[in-house]
Amino acid sequence: MSPSSLDELIDALRCLPGVGPKSAQRMAYHLLQRDQRGAQRLAAALDHALRVIRHCARCNTFTEDEICARCLSQKRDASTLCVVEMPADLNMLEQTHAYHGMYYVLMGRISPLDGIGPKELHLDKLLARATDGSVGEVILATNFTNEGEATAHYLGEMLRARGLKVSRIARGLPVGGEIEHTDAGTIAQALVERRTL
Amino acid sequence: MSPSSLDELIDALRCLPGVGPKSAQRMAYHLLQRDQRGAQRLAAALDHALRVIRHCARCNTFTEDEICARCLSQKRDASTLCVVEMPADLNMLEQTHAYHGMYYVLMGRISPLDGIGPKELHLDKLLARATDGSVGEVILATNFTNEGEATAHYLGEMLRARGLKVSRIARGLPVGGEIEHTDAGTIAQALVERRTL
Repeated sequence: MSPSSLDELIDALRCLPGVGPKSAQRMAYHLLQRDQRGAQRLAAALDHALRVIRHCARCNTFTEDEICARCLSQKRDASTLCVVEMPADLNMLEQTHAYHGMYYVLMGRISPLDGIGPKELHLDKLLARATDGSVGEVILATNFTNEGEATAHYLGEMLRARGLKVSRIARGLPVGGEIEHTDAGTIAQALVERRTL
Repeated sequence: MSPSSLDELIDALRCLPGVGPKSAQRMAYHLLQRDQRGAQRLAAALDHALRVIRHCARCNTFTEDEICARCLSQKRDASTLCVVEMPADLNMLEQTHAYHGMYYVLMGRISPLDGIGPKELHLDKLLARATDGSVGEVILATNFTNEGEATAHYLGEMLRARGLKVSRIARGLPVGGEIEHTDAGTIAQALVERRTL
């Protein structure tokens, strides 16, 4: 008995990750009853983003240009290429102000359960970028999850086969971390990856 | 350094209830990277719903018509009016097949903390509906939360003052409920509201 345009909106909201039928219903009611301006703004933002956003031809991140501003910057070290899973990871690395090289954003990770293999990640684009002559070292900064580790392993093999120097960001205790409250896997890895002082 | 259309989309997604900055970012990446068709569909559904959905002149629920199909139905008992907070509550009551009267949907509840008082709920519309001559009994089916109870109390006073018969749905143990695993408040209420057999 509910209007079809409401059913369609509730159904359409379910394309959002983590949104099930109950949340979608709650969101639709909220938008129609309490925030029509927000809903209008969301519709317009979706439309606009879908029209103008594409992938940077060099680093694969989201951009409105052929090549993003970061890739065009003359101030960055062109000889190191840091590979991350998502733009959010790139943002976190940038916030450290500890890295001044280039990036490549995979836009995902190898995840067989989700049907995402090397082909779906378009790794040929990364390979072309890493072997374009400017890159001396590739730093793999994928997550330390199962999928992120598998991705780093696959990329390591692939890039080393092309004669590239490949490194992986370190595992260990976080800054301020206490051994007593750290999981065993992290402590074991911190021992293996210990640095000579 | 991220494109402004992406920032705008992430910001616009935060109008959805329960969506903070991290979820909004994750949703935006997902839509742009993995589900552009879903995003297009969502934008269109929002646009369409905002244009065609309005409130039923009689029961206040969402509809595309002046008066919704349920209010126009000749098969329903016009002498009882059940007041609920949201259309989702109405749907649950309909699924019981135990009620065949009319409804009024408040589209909210009295909630001083959220700045929603009797005026914001447009209770004059409910009052006009309840006193239009057809209604013999008003059943208050707001939630048994603090806000729902306060709303029921306020509505009860208001409607009784107009000489209407007002009732409240019962509290008690759920079907299949075990006393051992029921909270004390519910047990106490089930004792107070006990039925003579």
